[in-house]
Amino acid sequence: MNYKEFENCGVKRSLDLLSGKWKPLILHHLFQEKEIRFIELWHKMPRVSKKVLLEQLKQLEDNNIIERIEVNEFPPQVYYGLHKNSNGLGEILLVLDNWGQNK
Amino acid sequence: MNYKEFENCGVKRSLDLLSGKWKPLILHHLFQEKEIRFIELWHKMPRVSKKVLLEQLKQLEDNNIIERIEVNEFPPQVYYGLHKNSNGLGEILLVLDNWGQNK
Repeated sequence: MNYKEFENCGVKRSLDLLSGKWKPLILHHLFQEKEIRFIELWHKMPRVSKKVLLEQLKQLEDNNIIERIEVNEFPPQVYYGLHKNSNGLGEILLVLDNWGQNK
Repeated sequence: MNYKEFENCGVKRSLDLLSGKWKPLILHHLFQEKEIRFIELWHKMPRVSKKVLLEQLKQLEDNNIIERIEVNEFPPQVYYGLHKNSNGLGEILLVLDNWGQNK
């Protein structure tokens, strides 16, 4: 297997996309809540700075794993949720959650 | 959520156990081949030293994700395979592989 095939390995690609200091936990909450305001998500996390949380959210958003939804209320609200086109992500999170809890 | 709950989050635990420079690829091959000799596995990997590959295998073995099977032949043979009690790991690798290939 050469490096190109290595980079194309689905298992590796998935794990690269989902791993990161706070990403598993973000996904865990977004999966449970469907849609959540940034400030609520931040309160649900262990002590992590807003800056770092925003960076992790941005990376997930850039990879089309989650969606940032801006609502034109006053004051404006920002919600996050799993990306609608991220087919099968819910199933993945469910099997990962079950498996991890039994390990 | 406090740190203890954070560490107990199944999604995080799964991703911690499965992630690592070469682990996704090792698991990909072990899932496909069922049982594979060390040297065969090494040949299937991109350029990685035997020492590093052994270290990654050892970590997976210590976490009961894969099994090291010694066969008393002459010369002695060492095989690796997914751990028999690693319930549901095959399903996880399958969904990760499918999802990753479409991302």
